[in-house]
Amino acid sequence: MNFASDNWAGAHPAISQRLLAASAGFSAPYGASKLDLKIEQRFNELFEHEVAVYFVSTGTAANSLALAAVNRPGGVSFCHREAHMLEDECGAPEFFTHGARLAPVDGDNGKIDPDSLNAEIQRFPPGFIHAGQPMAISITQSTEIGTLYQPDEIAAIADIAKFYGLPLHMDGARFANALVALNLTPAEMTWKRGVDIVSFGATKNGCWCAEALVFMNPKMAKDLPFIRKRAAQLLSKSRFIACQFDAYLQDGLWLTLARHANTMAKHLQNGIVNSKNARLAWHAQANEVFCVLDKAHADQLQEKGAVFYQWNPPRAKPGLLNQNEVLIRLVTSFATEADQVDRFLELLG
Amino acid sequence: MNFASDNWAGAHPAISQRLLAASAGFSAPYGASKLDLKIEQRFNELFEHEVAVYFVSTGTAANSLALAAVNRPGGVSFCHREAHMLEDECGAPEFFTHGARLAPVDGDNGKIDPDSLNAEIQRFPPGFIHAGQPMAISITQSTEIGTLYQPDEIAAIADIAKFYGLPLHMDGARFANALVALNLTPAEMTWKRGVDIVSFGATKNGCWCAEALVFMNPKMAKDLPFIRKRAAQLLSKSRFIACQFDAYLQDGLWLTLARHANTMAKHLQNGIVNSKNARLAWHAQANEVFCVLDKAHADQLQEKGAVFYQWNPPRAKPGLLNQNEVLIRLVTSFATEADQVDRFLELLG
Amino acid sequence: MNFASDNWAGAHPAISQRLLAASAGFSAPYGASKLDLKIEQRFNELFEHEVAVYFVSTGTAANSLALAAVNRPGGVSFCHREAHMLEDECGAPEFFTHGARLAPVDGDNGKIDPDSLNAEIQRFPPGFIHAGQPMAISITQSTEIGTLYQPDEIAAIADIAKFYGLPLHMDGARFANALVALNLTPAEMTWKRGVDIVSFGATKNGCWCAEALVFMNPKMAKDLPFIRKRAAQLLSKSRFIACQFDAYLQDGLWLTLARHANTMAKHLQNGIVNSKNARLAWHAQANEVFCVLDKAHADQLQEKGAVFYQWNPPRAKPGLLNQNEVLIRLVTSFATEADQVDRFLELLG
Amino acid sequence: MNFASDNWAGAHPAISQRLLAASAGFSAPYGASKLDLKIEQRFNELFEHEVAVYFVSTGTAANSLALAAVNRPGGVSFCHREAHMLEDECGAPEFFTHGARLAPVDGDNGKIDPDSLNAEIQRFPPGFIHAGQPMAISITQSTEIGTLYQPDEIAAIADIAKFYGLPLHMDGARFANALVALNLTPAEMTWKRGVDIVSFGATKNGCWCAEALVFMNPKMAKDLPFIRKRAAQLLSKSRFIACQFDAYLQDGLWLTLARHANTMAKHLQNGIVNSKNARLAWHAQANEVFCVLDKAHADQLQEKGAVFYQWNPPRAKPGLLNQNEVLIRLVTSFATEADQVDRFLELLG
Repeated sequence: MNFASDNWAGAHPAISQRLLAASAGFSAPYGASKLDLKIEQRFNELFEHEVAVYFVSTGTAANSLALAAVNRPGGVSFCHREAHMLEDECGAPEFFTHGARLAPVDGDNGKIDPDSLNAEIQRFPPGFIHAGQPMAISITQSTEIGTLYQPDEIAAIADIAKFYGLPLHMDGARFANALVALNLTPAEMTWKRGVDIVSFGATKNGCWCAEALVFMNPKMAKDLPFIRKRAAQLLSKSRFIACQFDAYLQDGLWLTLARHANTMAKHLQNGIVNSKNARLAWHAQANEVFCVLDKAHADQLQEKGAVFYQWNPPRAKPGLLNQNEVLIRLVTSFATEADQVDRFLELLG
Repeated sequence: MNFASDNWAGAHPAISQRLLAASAGFSAPYGASKLDLKIEQRFNELFEHEVAVYFVSTGTAANSLALAAVNRPGGVSFCHREAHMLEDECGAPEFFTHGARLAPVDGDNGKIDPDSLNAEIQRFPPGFIHAGQPMAISITQSTEIGTLYQPDEIAAIADIAKFYGLPLHMDGARFANALVALNLTPAEMTWKRGVDIVSFGATKNGCWCAEALVFMNPKMAKDLPFIRKRAAQLLSKSRFIACQFDAYLQDGLWLTLARHANTMAKHLQNGIVNSKNARLAWHAQANEVFCVLDKAHADQLQEKGAVFYQWNPPRAKPGLLNQNEVLIRLVTSFATEADQVDRFLELLG
Repeated sequence: MNFASDNWAGAHPAISQRLLAASAGFSAPYGASKLDLKIEQRFNELFEHEVAVYFVSTGTAANSLALAAVNRPGGVSFCHREAHMLEDECGAPEFFTHGARLAPVDGDNGKIDPDSLNAEIQRFPPGFIHAGQPMAISITQSTEIGTLYQPDEIAAIADIAKFYGLPLHMDGARFANALVALNLTPAEMTWKRGVDIVSFGATKNGCWCAEALVFMNPKMAKDLPFIRKRAAQLLSKSRFIACQFDAYLQDGLWLTLARHANTMAKHLQNGIVNSKNARLAWHAQANEVFCVLDKAHADQLQEKGAVFYQWNPPRAKPGLLNQNEVLIRLVTSFATEADQVDRFLELLG
Repeated sequence: MNFASDNWAGAHPAISQRLLAASAGFSAPYGASKLDLKIEQRFNELFEHEVAVYFVSTGTAANSLALAAVNRPGGVSFCHREAHMLEDECGAPEFFTHGARLAPVDGDNGKIDPDSLNAEIQRFPPGFIHAGQPMAISITQSTEIGTLYQPDEIAAIADIAKFYGLPLHMDGARFANALVALNLTPAEMTWKRGVDIVSFGATKNGCWCAEALVFMNPKMAKDLPFIRKRAAQLLSKSRFIACQFDAYLQDGLWLTLARHANTMAKHLQNGIVNSKNARLAWHAQANEVFCVLDKAHADQLQEKGAVFYQWNPPRAKPGLLNQNEVLIRLVTSFATEADQVDRFLELLG
């Protein structure tokens, strides 16, 4: 009954087998192997667009280097007040951008509110050196609290980005989960709605370590080769990441895995709706479910083998918890088994 | 006939099999899994010392974070004029140390000359703020040009480090090759000679991606957890690195692989000594061989399938090349086959 | 009728005369002159404490280097959501701390609310590397909106700082204005209430360019000489700053100048209270007055020669302005003349 | 008999008087005052070119921000092995460029040797990410050891800069001393020979604190307003620097002061040539004289009131000193009096 996080899961056998198959022979290092180049081409096809793609070893690296690519001195980037890059990356985005700031933007359901975004950007009049200069907007899809930006919501943020001439980044640590939940193509969820840069995460969805930073406009990434190398993120045996993507994208494996995770989450969510001991904190749409229950009951579940984290309530929901209640996060993954969900729900009661 | 670099090799089957075996199940992420902890313990045993060990994804990360751990503002670290961290890491060490400088030190045979080191450090009188403050010394073992610091040479550098109160770092991208060539234990090649920090590389010697940053004095690494996370080097599925080390260190596999690489290099070197078309640039001691030959002949070898790089002659050897001659580097690895060496030597003539 | 900012004023004649008198002769540069050392001693007396004092050229430098002195990787510092260092220093604090974050804390009247502060700090459990690590708290006295922390309010923040082991910094760009308004000694407004570091500003109160960074515990500043030099803030002819402080602190000149500015602000505020065309936005306590009036009337005042800035309403006061109204800031200084205030109030009506 | 450095001198009376005269009245801060704008225009005339000019508070700031303006990730800038920015700025250039490296270039007489420069740059093939990317070349005029680049020597460096597409920066901490020694106009010593950026120092030549960063191509400085503000170098009462330049440039005062300093140096040098107790280390051409003498005699001179520093011999002159000899540096300034030089020479014998 492990619902701690999708990064507690291991690797899907197809990924591991592909790694084993690739282990012999000599190949050019540092992203120059045939396999690296083949996978880069695969990303072009995947996004139906000529993209520039850079493999890195962590999602934090992808997000940080995305911002590093588009920031200049005095830069300020806008993200949700509880965005992963603001709350959970230990200052990496600020570090890799040489101290550029992440400006928090409020919004319900884990999503940036366009009006709040607009108001925050307006605090930075063009050329007003004291405040700094807006450089980018970042959204997370699916969000940190398991919700989704609908296509028109992405477009609304992108309109603001375009108005101010700012690139729009999507933190896609759970890109696949969002994609299958919305039943969109990668193109439809990104550049067709105005997204310029994607942190395309595969680690949480069945790979060992495979993250790709994707630029819809390769010119935007012109310094990225140096930025990545200077960031110690240019892996010598880069083909090891490439071959994970090879298996991941083969025959829609990635979508299959994400669908499974989402299905498990839905199952879990339905159970919670019917539980007499817990209530949904909000409606989940991808592979993370948040629910409220008594602390004592939560403790009991953990004693009985359920693994999950307590979570800070969003600042926008100050009245979420009654006395003695806690908020817990339940994450499903490609590796979650239906009977484990059942068992959990049974214990939950 | 691939002698381009040891990172052109793939992964040893034992490493890949271990990865496959580890792919199922749930484990704590971010270095907290049982396997991570077990491997940390293995490092204690390996070094016969209680060490602090941090896995990272590249050698550049290991070197850079080593320096980041011990630098303060105005910091200056001393390394050989042609050290990898100075010439081949695109400024990563300076970036991760917030702009600390690498001061080049001269020395023959790719090794820091103790007198030159002493003279350079003396340019930084204590408290003289204009110059900056010495923070660390770094040596590479085996060196960038395939030579080795003998144990007493390490100790001589360490004496200077101790005198000035500076930590001594060893860039061990090819640690195993040096170790078996010198027939020493890890303890004998490091802390018993005064080395404080080791970048313990395994990628070049048969892993996919496994680098460990090892501190002999854990207190020296007290901020490393934050430094590593901020550097985007804390892998979520960290056990994937841990299990590579598990196989690597099992039954002395790592030493066997390094011995093979060194043997192949020796074979290559013997052939060059007897060649009428090439001469050794200097005597190699690990798994890199450097030789001088006519450019036309080098080109011909490449046309016939030999893969290698031309190399910049060391600044200390201005007269190394006659007209029309080039310096080439030949690197062997665990994957180098004897008949490939034979074929190369035959073609070399 | 210039109420744009106290940095629109020039220099008090006593400061300029002191500079002229100091222009001849040879003195040790870089802070080592007798005058520099004498003024350092004066600061000891001023604060009734052995302090470490560093002159710098701007208030932004003082604030940024204060944070740089106490930050480590992954660092997060807490300040009011509309603190100068967060909103008006173009990312300098983040830059000088290598990307450490400023975490915004809410609070009415421009002051950090202790409960909000506590709640924000608790989001950073000790050793939780993903979030980062709390490093400092900063308050501004007088605040950015002309209000004051009462002594017990400073102490309340300091209690939290102490509880979490965080140094407490005071941005004293308008230190003197606060001091005379509260009728406290420097000791009473700082270390006796738990303040550890002060950006002691003199530029806005009659100097040309004189800012001092004052550490109550000199050990906290052990790297500051290198931090300051590396920040390009070690002035060669440092005695030029020292002699400004010499005149500034002589016979209480600084307090006299601040009292004058505050008196002018009070006068202005009284006039606004009685105005039929404007209303106070909130009660001012130092030398900045904020009032609300019709945009058309504000424009008219400017046409007639009044100089001031429109201001963003605090986020905590969303309903402050009715339609067509604007918020304006009126700043007085040592150079503000009473008849200019009168004339302004007359025009205001 | 103070020959320690030109920054031991105070301020020329004309500078101080101008400051006094400017002390009253209200002016726009942050470089927007009429006086600031007037002086910017004066720089256009001075350089016979439309330039972008930014005032900063130290020479280290000017040099560092010059490099910050033109560096990108992985950047490497080339300067003489004993350049001030490499040896005496505590890592500020590296810090402000986010870790870009200064690559030392050898050359006799304190000047970059064009062949060595070319050879060093060629170690960075275009697009070779491991090494980093060349970003700028910097020369110091007059040099750190009191010599001068002749106009054709500047042009030779500029040709290399142009060939590789690199901006050429001139550290002009002693710009005026070089200018009058060579009898050139500012245009002739800079852009007419291919210099793109100048750190135009005035502090050492009679100002309190007046440094200007001058870009021949304003487009090259497009981010400078943000870079400077983020560097805490945007002075609020910026007109204080402007008015120093106003007096400095008035009626050729700056050239008169520099000529005096150079004349004093010549006088000193002639005396040393005729001394039986000392010998010139090399021929000085501006306002710094270097000579070799017995340590005992140097100590004696200091006991008798001469103030000067011992100096590290250039690495290129390993045999400069015999046993018991030391190298000393003697710097003259606008404030050096002829009878002090006479007295020193008499004591020297």
